[in-house]
Amino acid sequence: MSVVHVQTPGGNYPIQVAPGRLDLMAESIPSDATTLALITNPTVFALYGERVLQALNTTGKKVVQILIEDGEQYKNGKTLDVIFDGLLQNRLDRKAVIVALGGGVVGDISGFAAACFMRGIRFIQVPTTLLSQVDSSVGGKTAINHPLGKNMIGAFYQPIAVEIDIHVLKTLPKREISAGLAEVIKYGMITDADFLDWCLANTDALNALEDEPTQYAVTRSCELKAYVVSQDERESGLRAILNFGHTFGHAIEAGLGYGKWLHGEAVGCGMIMAAELSAEVCGLSAQSVQKIRDLVAAIGCPTEPPKWDHDKWIDLMGLDKKAEGGQLRFVLLPELGKSVVQTVDVATVKKVLAKF
Amino acid sequence: MSVVHVQTPGGNYPIQVAPGRLDLMAESIPSDATTLALITNPTVFALYGERVLQALNTTGKKVVQILIEDGEQYKNGKTLDVIFDGLLQNRLDRKAVIVALGGGVVGDISGFAAACFMRGIRFIQVPTTLLSQVDSSVGGKTAINHPLGKNMIGAFYQPIAVEIDIHVLKTLPKREISAGLAEVIKYGMITDADFLDWCLANTDALNALEDEPTQYAVTRSCELKAYVVSQDERESGLRAILNFGHTFGHAIEAGLGYGKWLHGEAVGCGMIMAAELSAEVCGLSAQSVQKIRDLVAAIGCPTEPPKWDHDKWIDLMGLDKKAEGGQLRFVLLPELGKSVVQTVDVATVKKVLAKF
Repeated sequence: MSVVHVQTPGGNYPIQVAPGRLDLMAESIPSDATTLALITNPTVFALYGERVLQALNTTGKKVVQILIEDGEQYKNGKTLDVIFDGLLQNRLDRKAVIVALGGGVVGDISGFAAACFMRGIRFIQVPTTLLSQVDSSVGGKTAINHPLGKNMIGAFYQPIAVEIDIHVLKTLPKREISAGLAEVIKYGMITDADFLDWCLANTDALNALEDEPTQYAVTRSCELKAYVVSQDERESGLRAILNFGHTFGHAIEAGLGYGKWLHGEAVGCGMIMAAELSAEVCGLSAQSVQKIRDLVAAIGCPTEPPKWDHDKWIDLMGLDKKAEGGQLRFVLLPELGKSVVQTVDVATVKKVLAKF
Repeated sequence: MSVVHVQTPGGNYPIQVAPGRLDLMAESIPSDATTLALITNPTVFALYGERVLQALNTTGKKVVQILIEDGEQYKNGKTLDVIFDGLLQNRLDRKAVIVALGGGVVGDISGFAAACFMRGIRFIQVPTTLLSQVDSSVGGKTAINHPLGKNMIGAFYQPIAVEIDIHVLKTLPKREISAGLAEVIKYGMITDADFLDWCLANTDALNALEDEPTQYAVTRSCELKAYVVSQDERESGLRAILNFGHTFGHAIEAGLGYGKWLHGEAVGCGMIMAAELSAEVCGLSAQSVQKIRDLVAAIGCPTEPPKWDHDKWIDLMGLDKKAEGGQLRFVLLPELGKSVVQTVDVATVKKVLAKF
């Protein structure tokens, strides 16, 4: 087992990564917990619910189950109320602990429920997608969507533990693995060139979800994200580098309609575009751009963006909620493993768009 | 003007107390605020809305108004959505500031909205009742009610400033002043015997809302509460002493039906009962009990509890959500200005009930 110790002003906690952690998660339940509330969706429950219940039951504590609908469209206030109703009907108190079993939607909404219930109870995240294992398990971002915007209502709230069982990835579609690996290699690009090289040397093993390399890739990703987040819990500065590839990526998602490409796929392709922009603006070498392109291709993400008119691209990027004051801001790489945030004028962006 | 500097792990902020602060509150608006959202109810808006708008407009910033229904029964998820809708329809961003103008309901729900909107934006509290000035302006407790329990959904979230205009108290009914003064004298009982004596010497001036004594009483109450809260932001220990009089008080409220007596009135009478229990259990002198009784009477709160069967009292106190494990816990005074939390057996409680 690998353990990442995450330290933030809002709390410290361990991320425990290993094959088979689902069966051992009772280790993370605090002894003074009164009741455990397992929150998941029917899809994940069918796959892993019984195993998790069995593990939780070994604590001898009362366990209640709350099932929520599966899908991003249910990450809303109505589903949050389903959770609150369940917690209150089962008379959970301030010493209850929520166990969130699922991907980003379950994690985000359960974490937010934990943040608000009786002004904050403890929760444990058990992420079951590669994206949620390497992304939402670090950073404490919890939220629900509002009809007028994604993730508009939420809290920065840290779990007391994250339990990552890498074997649960075996039941995911290949596209979701590719999309998750896009975030993995992103951490290398923005903070750790050696890790990037390691990823390039291990793409076959990662694509095949071999135990050791997968455990290492997930662990190292969490470490790198934890490093960034520990310095900027409330997203005022450094944390922005985590958006590498996202300005282009969000444009792709918005332009194609959300869900056509997975978020990670769009970010994968967006990172190639951001690499070309880095070459243009801050001197990233052609060799490094090629390395990024090769890696995105090797993990199975699209490398060719949609063929759109340049003005459409600019429009779509301007709608990105991270855009400030009408200027286009990008995370760029002066070299692999180093990142900066800077604004770029529209003409330069169009020059780079012309390369695709 | 008096200023109380509140320090908590979740943030530091000033409470500014003076007659006429409403007209000067622009002083508390941070220069980097993008938009100001004034949240209040129609009753308060009719009294003070124009003055506050005029003050906020001197900043030159855009000000939007969000009106919510007046009353505890509207402190719920539906009203919270009204606020979120207003914030998003007006395109407020992370640098917007909420100004909450009103009593406890407006403060609690607006503070919770600020805690959750985009994972937390800044807010300024402008409490307009005596109870909210001396109670909810310190402590960072924000919340909404749920059909299954009061204040079940919320957050500990600190404002960036509290602006207290003591002149707004002049439009309150006398009963609300009495109920607010009950909380004021509570702070003296649990932490500061000198302040208690000062209150006793100034009841006429306080009842008449004379400027200087009112400003001092509000300021000193905030200081004393801030002292308690600064040592226990998340309500794990010391903060419990703030519930002096509340076990009996909640029983009165629940038994009569909520709203029959104001919360502060019930607490006022509850403090006399808790004083008698303190005399029985931990040696509070008869003279001190009499002083508490005199003070509760002098501020115009009821001194005689309802005449109920003792078992009904015990039942009602067992329902108090601060009760733990079936035992009756009380905040008691070994002497004036000192408080302890301890469990008391039912027989002793009944012995004290027999005195009323």
